[in-house]
Parts: sequence; structure tokens; C-alpha cells
Amino acid sequence: MDDKGKLELMKDRIVKTYVIQKDIINPLSEDFDCTPEELEHVLFDLLDMSGLLSLHATFETAEYECLVKKFHADLRLCLFVNTLELISQDDADELKEKLAKQVMDGKDYSDVLKEGQKQLFQLLKNSR
Amino acid sequence: MDDKGKLELMKDRIVKTYVIQKDIINPLSEDFDCTPEELEHVLFDLLDMSGLLSLHATFETAEYECLVKKFHADLRLCLFVNTLELISQDDADELKEKLAKQVMDGKDYSDVLKEGQKQLFQLLKNSR
Repeated sequence: MDDKGKLELMKDRIVKTYVIQKDIINPLSEDFDCTPEELEHVLFDLLDMSGLLSLHATFETAEYECLVKKFHADLRLCLFVNTLELISQDDADELKEKLAKQVMDGKDYSDVLKEGQKQLFQLLKNSR
Repeated sequence: MDDKGKLELMKDRIVKTYVIQKDIINPLSEDFDCTPEELEHVLFDLLDMSGLLSLHATFETAEYECLVKKFHADLRLCLFVNTLELISQDDADELKEKLAKQVMDGKDYSDVLKEGQKQLFQLLKNSR
């Protein structure tokens, strides 16, 4: 087998690992309505060896960032922080980052959101 | 009735209008697990007359901004744009703003998200 063949084999082994399949390939192929194999081919073409090796860490970091944004949206912080300025940027950051960490630790998103909404209402009441 | 009393009455009439009740008081009191009356009192204390008069327009603008953020999160654009840089900022902005407008026009969020996920996969395939 030539060097190119060996590299392809190594890339294939990385993509086939349990954590990459469970955390990335399965949910993304569900998002994209495609087979896991089709997604693997696309990622293969798009990412080099170093991109694939760091993919799981990269994915986790991005998931956390996206969760923070999702809480910002679902708590309607665009209204309370950015537009009405009733909640400070610091209080909002602290709240949504705390909630995102709870989801990363395995708690259910809807449960954590409900708790966050109550805490936001408390912040609003306290700002009177 | 003194001026303060008249002002309170005018503020109360604004908050009791159909669109404010339907679009703001009802969904927010559901978010916050409180009665509509409790939320009205809090908003009364927090917003002056001009804040109340512009509340509906402010809310609509903020809802759109939050929808764009929610699509950013649910499409995992933190991964594909910010971290892996496989999709350009311009393409991502165009996609999520188009989707947010469809929801503002009354389409169901989940249906629009599913369509957006397919378009994102197409963008990824085209970037190979």
C-alpha cells in the first residue's frame, strides 16, 4: 500500500471510532437526512488528518458555544439585554453560560431552559 | 384624577391591547410561569410610557434577531462557520436570515430548520 493509501486508511479509522460515530456522524447525518457513509465521505474530502484528529474536541467546543447562543435566543435575551437593556450583559452571560454547562453535563435542555426562564424573571423583578 | 393617575391609566390601556396581550404578555407569562397580571406589573415598573408605546415593535425586532441566533445554534454554525471555517460568514448569514424570515412569516420552526439543514449540507458538499 502506498503512502496515500495508508493515510486514507488512518483517516477512515479515525472516523469509524465510537465517539466520532456517536457524537458527530450519527446526529449530523440525522440533521442532514443522509446516510452516515455519505457524511463520512464529505468530511473526508473537507478535513485533513489534523482536522480529523481534532474533530471531537472542536465539535465539543462548538456545541458549547452554540448552546450558549440557543439559550440567548430561547430566553429572548435579544429583547431583555440588547433592546430594552433591562438585564446587564454580565448577568445575561453568567446565566446562559451556567445553563449551557448544565446541558453539557447531561441535563435535559427543556428542563434547564425552564429553570433559566424563572431565574431571568427574578433578575427582571430585581431590576425594578 | 391627577396626572399620575391619568398616566397609569394610559399605560394600563396600552398593556391591555390585544396585540400586546397576544404577542407579549401571554407567551412571556408562560415562559416565566407567572400570571399575566404579575408580568404586567413588572413591565409597568420597568418601562416608561415611551417604552410601552414602542414595546410591540421592539419585541418583533428582537424576536427576529433571536430567531437568527437560534438557527445559528440549531444548524451548528458555530462548528461549520466559526471553528472549521467550511462555510463562509456570508453564506451562513444569508441562510439563517432567509430561514428566520420564513418563521416570522408564519412557517413552522421545525419545518424551516429541516429545510435549512438540507441546504447547509448542500453548501458543505459544494465547498469540497
